Amino acid sequence: MITGTFLDEISHDIASANWGPDEWRRDFASMKADGIDTVVLIRAGYKDRATFDARVLRKLHPHLIVQEDLVALFLSLAAEHGMSLWFGSYDSGEFWQQQQHQKEADLNRALVDEVWERYGRSSAFRGWYLGHEIDARDEHSLRALEELCGHIKATSGLPILIAPRPRGTQQSQASFTLEQHRREWTSLCAELRGRVDCVAFQDGGVPFALLPEFLAVNAELARANGLANWSSVESFDRDVHVKYPPIAWPKLRYKLECALAAGVSKLITFEYSHFLSPHSMYSSAHALHRRYREWLATQR
Amino acid sequence: MITGTFLDEISHDIASANWGPDEWRRDFASMKADGIDTVVLIRAGYKDRATFDARVLRKLHPHLIVQEDLVALFLSLAAEHGMSLWFGSYDSGEFWQQQQHQKEADLNRALVDEVWERYGRSSAFRGWYLGHEIDARDEHSLRALEELCGHIKATSGLPILIAPRPRGTQQSQASFTLEQHRREWTSLCAELRGRVDCVAFQDGGVPFALLPEFLAVNAELARANGLANWSSVESFDRDVHVKYPPIAWPKLRYKLECALAAGVSKLITFEYSHFLSPHSMYSSAHALHRRYREWLATQR
Amino acid sequence: MITGTFLDEISHDIASANWGPDEWRRDFASMKADGIDTVVLIRAGYKDRATFDARVLRKLHPHLIVQEDLVALFLSLAAEHGMSLWFGSYDSGEFWQQQQHQKEADLNRALVDEVWERYGRSSAFRGWYLGHEIDARDEHSLRALEELCGHIKATSGLPILIAPRPRGTQQSQASFTLEQHRREWTSLCAELRGRVDCVAFQDGGVPFALLPEFLAVNAELARANGLANWSSVESFDRDVHVKYPPIAWPKLRYKLECALAAGVSKLITFEYSHFLSPHSMYSSAHALHRRYREWLATQR
Repeated sequence: MITGTFLDEISHDIASANWGPDEWRRDFASMKADGIDTVVLIRAGYKDRATFDARVLRKLHPHLIVQEDLVALFLSLAAEHGMSLWFGSYDSGEFWQQQQHQKEADLNRALVDEVWERYGRSSAFRGWYLGHEIDARDEHSLRALEELCGHIKATSGLPILIAPRPRGTQQSQASFTLEQHRREWTSLCAELRGRVDCVAFQDGGVPFALLPEFLAVNAELARANGLANWSSVESFDRDVHVKYPPIAWPKLRYKLECALAAGVSKLITFEYSHFLSPHSMYSSAHALHRRYREWLATQR
Repeated sequence: MITGTFLDEISHDIASANWGPDEWRRDFASMKADGIDTVVLIRAGYKDRATFDARVLRKLHPHLIVQEDLVALFLSLAAEHGMSLWFGSYDSGEFWQQQQHQKEADLNRALVDEVWERYGRSSAFRGWYLGHEIDARDEHSLRALEELCGHIKATSGLPILIAPRPRGTQQSQASFTLEQHRREWTSLCAELRGRVDCVAFQDGGVPFALLPEFLAVNAELARANGLANWSSVESFDRDVHVKYPPIAWPKLRYKLECALAAGVSKLITFEYSHFLSPHSMYSSAHALHRRYREWLATQR
Repeated sequence: MITGTFLDEISHDIASANWGPDEWRRDFASMKADGIDTVVLIRAGYKDRATFDARVLRKLHPHLIVQEDLVALFLSLAAEHGMSLWFGSYDSGEFWQQQQHQKEADLNRALVDEVWERYGRSSAFRGWYLGHEIDARDEHSLRALEELCGHIKATSGLPILIAPRPRGTQQSQASFTLEQHRREWTSLCAELRGRVDCVAFQDGGVPFALLPEFLAVNAELARANGLANWSSVESFDRDVHVKYPPIAWPKLRYKLECALAAGVSKLITFEYSHFLSPHSMYSSAHALHRRYREWLATQR
């Protein structure tokens, strides 16, 4: 049922498993065996770390911390397993957060050129993922995103995915009600219509009791705006002291069943390799994988 | 020496190991081999999660997140291994905390009926555990607890365990001195006398240097009120960044030796499966188990 | 390249792996195979925990939590593998922090006598490590440190190591610029000259971009004052939620390459057994070890 996963390298806040090519190869084989056909690179880089030695990023950070070409590795593994890779945008860790949306977008526009020139010929390169989050209408970020979308489409012709976090979350103070979420995203989707192709709302911050309704609204919004209605199923646990371990299986199953009931067209997870893989650095992920496979077996 | 353990499903704040029946069966076999004859279900449920699909809880949370019957599983494994299971009360996560003690007690009274009707015939069902913590005299919570105790006794005739946390802890701001602890619990024990049967004070928040004195006071209080004097030995570590890993063995050994010196009648731990088991999701628990077994061998 | 490691027992804030003699023996063998010739006991004890049953500490804490003689174990394993052990000072967890520097130094002076009498004959005992951190000039702490250094030299004749944390860190509010760091440590090194023998600045809190310059200043300071210029390479990750997991390999490699470029005379790490060992309790450390060994192979 889960047919896509993020690849959380470069990680923003989650500990690295320190995998090299052999460990990644082993994990892609597991993904394939579990029905995953889509991998989404969470980001091209973050601050002074990068997935490949990009000229654009090296200029910004002369000491750029990168030694391998993870993009080449992931594209090659994806191609080998017949998977699609969606390439994630670069997160400076400062410009977007400081309302310098244009600067972040300009940087990414240049990076898109470099990436497309360098990797565009790979058969696995099938889309782009924009990781810059919006959760409420803001003209500056919208203009920057739209411009970036336009550039991506003009350059590559490939579809674009976003995976926004609804503001109706357990953790945020000024969280949105379902109605506010609907109103805000009705407006946002109208703007993104024709620019973005797939929307995969995160399912993690929404109270469990309200998840079915949020998913229904999301489906409605997607349908009304011609967007593919994916869902981003968080496979990590937000409710415990440790930030973050693999999620408790009953919660993951509950969320999967909600998403299926809402008729989403594709389930992707954040993310397989840390939280759901039989090769994860967390042994509770190995058990989560067993539970997931047992459940899958009952769904056929 | 440790002959009892909590079963921390549904967990309140500790990451799930995501065990299914096979993994639990393996762990019960280890418990048995380690001398454990008593398992205490930490809670029937927490907020919208439950150990079985209880009508009472389903009414409170129509979307109740429960897919398996953990109570049936644990009772069957306990029976298989000749262990006693003590059933833990439900924690709404809101009413008790918001001083609505009566509402929490009413909910649990109804749940006791449902539980006893459903599982009361199991030979392993030998007691109840009340997880609603009290650490100082408060008439409302006392009345609610007493009423619940009365109902449990009238319904099942089984003994009742509480495992209070002394307020003289490292973490609490307004912590109790030993004398305050003695005074408060002299009064509380007089109230609970005849209603509760076993008291297992938590040993975790007490400064190590004061633990022997706290244990002596606890023993005195239990003796004076006809209560069984158990001790709840925390096998997780409170002193490190990560909340919570398996405890450093020297601390566990120190606490065990203090408890033995104080003449407690039974040691239960919070808890075996995460923190002390050779099958734990934490490899430092495997090592803790080796240390514990080595020490056990020297005690015979 | 890394030829030394701290031994983080007794740990200050990192979860214990609960290793006994067999697990430690296995890890010393791995250290040896990885080129480690120096182990630095991080501290003789912390608060009421100790690496051996020291009279001096037992007097301070009558309930001292210690059951094994870790110092004897570590010295014997070091001797067996031809390694040097540097003995770390005791950290009361209160006196130094409360500006009672003299009291902390007096305590340690008495402990030095006891340690030297008890373990001084071991062939592996080759130095002392003073873990009381200074990051800016302060006359009281300087006087206390100097007195302690004098006593250590007079008693044992062995060299002394310090591993200060530059105040120019990511986490501290009032962090030092490179210039402030240079100014402060020019003054401090002049004081410590002839008293301390090796300085291993921690590389962990320094922004990655500035690390080469900090390392260059450190090298200059060491050279000017006749101090051996070591570097303390943190093998744990400071940038993620969990405090602390093994570091992401690209960061460790970056830091190693910076240190080599700066011409440090010895690299020690904090620390092998938790974060870099193939026997670590963290599986991401096993992978980090594989990455490190692969990189080592390319350096020869």
